Amino acid sequence: MTSFSHSAPEFLSIEEAGRLLRKREISPVELVNAALEQISRWNPGLNAFLTIVANDAQREARAAERAFRRGEARGPLHGIPISLKDNFWTRGIRSTAGSKILAKLVPDADSDVAGRLAHAGAILLGKTNMHEFAYGITNENPHYGPVHNPWAQERISGGSSGGSAVAVATGMGFASMGTDTGGSIRIPASLCGIVGLKPTFGLVSVRGVVPLAQTMDHAGPLARSVMDVCILLQGVAREYPKEVPRPDYRKLRKSIPRRFRLGWPKEYFFDGVDLEVRRAVDAAAKTLESLGACIEEVSLPHLAESVEPSTNIAMAEATRYHESQGYFPAHAAEYGEDVRKRLEMGRQVRAVDYLHAFAVKQEIEREFEAAYARVDAIVAPAVPITAPCIGEKEVTINGQKETVRSALVRLNRPANLTGDPAISIPCGYTRAGLPVGLQLIAPHWGEARLLAIALAYEKATEWHKRHPLLS
Amino acid sequence: MTSFSHSAPEFLSIEEAGRLLRKREISPVELVNAALEQISRWNPGLNAFLTIVANDAQREARAAERAFRRGEARGPLHGIPISLKDNFWTRGIRSTAGSKILAKLVPDADSDVAGRLAHAGAILLGKTNMHEFAYGITNENPHYGPVHNPWAQERISGGSSGGSAVAVATGMGFASMGTDTGGSIRIPASLCGIVGLKPTFGLVSVRGVVPLAQTMDHAGPLARSVMDVCILLQGVAREYPKEVPRPDYRKLRKSIPRRFRLGWPKEYFFDGVDLEVRRAVDAAAKTLESLGACIEEVSLPHLAESVEPSTNIAMAEATRYHESQGYFPAHAAEYGEDVRKRLEMGRQVRAVDYLHAFAVKQEIEREFEAAYARVDAIVAPAVPITAPCIGEKEVTINGQKETVRSALVRLNRPANLTGDPAISIPCGYTRAGLPVGLQLIAPHWGEARLLAIALAYEKATEWHKRHPLLS
Repeated sequence: MTSFSHSAPEFLSIEEAGRLLRKREISPVELVNAALEQISRWNPGLNAFLTIVANDAQREARAAERAFRRGEARGPLHGIPISLKDNFWTRGIRSTAGSKILAKLVPDADSDVAGRLAHAGAILLGKTNMHEFAYGITNENPHYGPVHNPWAQERISGGSSGGSAVAVATGMGFASMGTDTGGSIRIPASLCGIVGLKPTFGLVSVRGVVPLAQTMDHAGPLARSVMDVCILLQGVAREYPKEVPRPDYRKLRKSIPRRFRLGWPKEYFFDGVDLEVRRAVDAAAKTLESLGACIEEVSLPHLAESVEPSTNIAMAEATRYHESQGYFPAHAAEYGEDVRKRLEMGRQVRAVDYLHAFAVKQEIEREFEAAYARVDAIVAPAVPITAPCIGEKEVTINGQKETVRSALVRLNRPANLTGDPAISIPCGYTRAGLPVGLQLIAPHWGEARLLAIALAYEKATEWHKRHPLLS
Repeated sequence: MTSFSHSAPEFLSIEEAGRLLRKREISPVELVNAALEQISRWNPGLNAFLTIVANDAQREARAAERAFRRGEARGPLHGIPISLKDNFWTRGIRSTAGSKILAKLVPDADSDVAGRLAHAGAILLGKTNMHEFAYGITNENPHYGPVHNPWAQERISGGSSGGSAVAVATGMGFASMGTDTGGSIRIPASLCGIVGLKPTFGLVSVRGVVPLAQTMDHAGPLARSVMDVCILLQGVAREYPKEVPRPDYRKLRKSIPRRFRLGWPKEYFFDGVDLEVRRAVDAAAKTLESLGACIEEVSLPHLAESVEPSTNIAMAEATRYHESQGYFPAHAAEYGEDVRKRLEMGRQVRAVDYLHAFAVKQEIEREFEAAYARVDAIVAPAVPITAPCIGEKEVTINGQKETVRSALVRLNRPANLTGDPAISIPCGYTRAGLPVGLQLIAPHWGEARLLAIALAYEKATEWHKRHPLLS
């Protein structure tokens, strides 16, 4: 392991890197420099970062090195280089949220997440590119340029946390924090072949994060393995309710259940799924069965009817936020066309429809709860397709045309509506070499079991070990 | 007292009636019959009741009589005849909410309030007339006829709990429960010369009450004195937060503070107030000062800007409820014109404006909280006018025209927006003999102190002892 790790320290697991740091077989300075090396080689082509704080990172790395030398290791994130999506406020570091409107904003305070990660000793490399104001899922940013998929650079990374996903996939840091209002962590994680977790609503603070839609915004980690995601989550999570088993990366391997129950949705989640994606998810289900899963059908009959209501919630809350800040419509011309158009649509949502959407939300929550009475988690594709090309507006799935937006969002939004934790993990590659993501959705506060099941799958497969071959 | 009480048992205080009941100097049957006698004499002209359950009431009275004979007295409401506004569900008793749409509804369950009052031994006389679906403040009901003001029968009672206010004012029961979304307890209480309390939001359960606007609906008591209101409140209130002194009618007299601070709003509450009403409120302030009040000016600078937002909340939530039940627009023709029009307006409220209204609500809450840092309660008129005539759509206040709706609602809505407890107590009569109400508004959960201050005023004045002379 050591030899491999020294040859490519930027692709170590966080756990292994931590072990080497504590044994002082590697230095935080080495880790940071390896990541910065990846950034200077690949970022010009991939456009994953909006801001790189190389000097700050190196200074912090030296400080961490001294701490390790003094035997003052903090925790598993100490000395680990990471990045943050650019909608997390970082004190003294420009935080644009991918917008022109906030292009010059240098916050005087950290977001809660940035503060917690700094406190845990993680080293910030920079702020990642994103869909403007997190209001889209392609990461084709009109102000800062598109983020390119490292598996096929003419393709989108997915978004809105696309810069984070690309950074993690290419060794520009070990992990990143993104946000997810309609799939913005899970979509780029699955299109880029990494792990992305949208935790339970409220578990990770969004204080100091530029909001998209207040009742559906979640912050969560992106990393290259389930274990790394667990370590990040522990670093940023607030308190769990007392009675709930909380995730602990040191116990995660031992907590893999020998038998567990998975729900296979009868409706919605397997409609309009590309055949190659479907095949990968079917194979993942077989693997999970071999690992002790009992898979049974579950019914979520009204999910299809939640699409419009959940969109209404998101659009109304987004427009309301931009109006409240005086950004919109005052600065309408400074938005990209797609975001401006959606902000305009948000003004048309009627209050009665917004209120109706919350009744639908409750109904959907009840349907998921009924399923969780019988299963530990629900299995689904993360997205029904692999990464579309940059500039594509429509895709054809099994002969049916659909907008890229709808295709990428529709299997993700349910967990934003319910607030349930949902993870995307790599589960295969298409013949064209594009990654496919498997989604597992669990009940509120169920991260410990969700991560254990995801880890069981990951341990049995090799998908997460592939890295894009850049040239 | 006994001689007076026996000559007019229907106008006893609840406390005195309870004393006589326990001493068996009066019987619950006598109390019920006296109230039923008032109903048969005056209700045909006043139209306060939609449903009278004379037989049930008499049967319960006999059961209570037996209980008192056995020495099984329950509490201060045992054997006390009362009424309920017709939007409280009552098991086995028609509950129309003043509508044609629910004209035949006979609920199979009690509202929480009806259940609590029954458990406390109160005897239900009937269900009171109201503005259709509580969506208006005149009580000109197109399906069941208007409620007449007992002080001037060509005038409105005010609403939407107008039937309750008239019943209480005329001895058709000792007290009633109403609801208040924009003044619907305080408006009829002040126009009819009785006491009406809108408690802290959530203190009294609205389960089993036909909703108007879910975030502003309150249930609360109407009675002829502060002490009676306190007894009713204790009978229906849910738990207070642990640290808060809760109202206790047995301690209320002793809890009157020797010194207290009252806030006199610099803005909004004294704009556009009829001169006779203003004079009565000014005189009340003098009386309060003589009782130990230190009155100082407080500022609520943004209250005027909350009118439209709070109306948006109410309209959107009302229409949403009627849509969700399939009443509107399916049965649009079955509504009165005014309610139908408002339900239509509710469909036009935009979600962004609804969300904006909650930001305004927070701002107004902060302004009130800043005032409460300096004063125990805020003094204001309950309404800026006395009872308009039935059929009047506009009033002229100090030469300015205004709709009846706006005039009656505008000083009430602030406490619905903040959820603060607010009471209206009689504070005078105009030369024409119409009652004027004084409003006191206190911080959340502040009923104990609010009622003590109101009681101090009431003890020093005779206004609450006047009863309308009917003929």
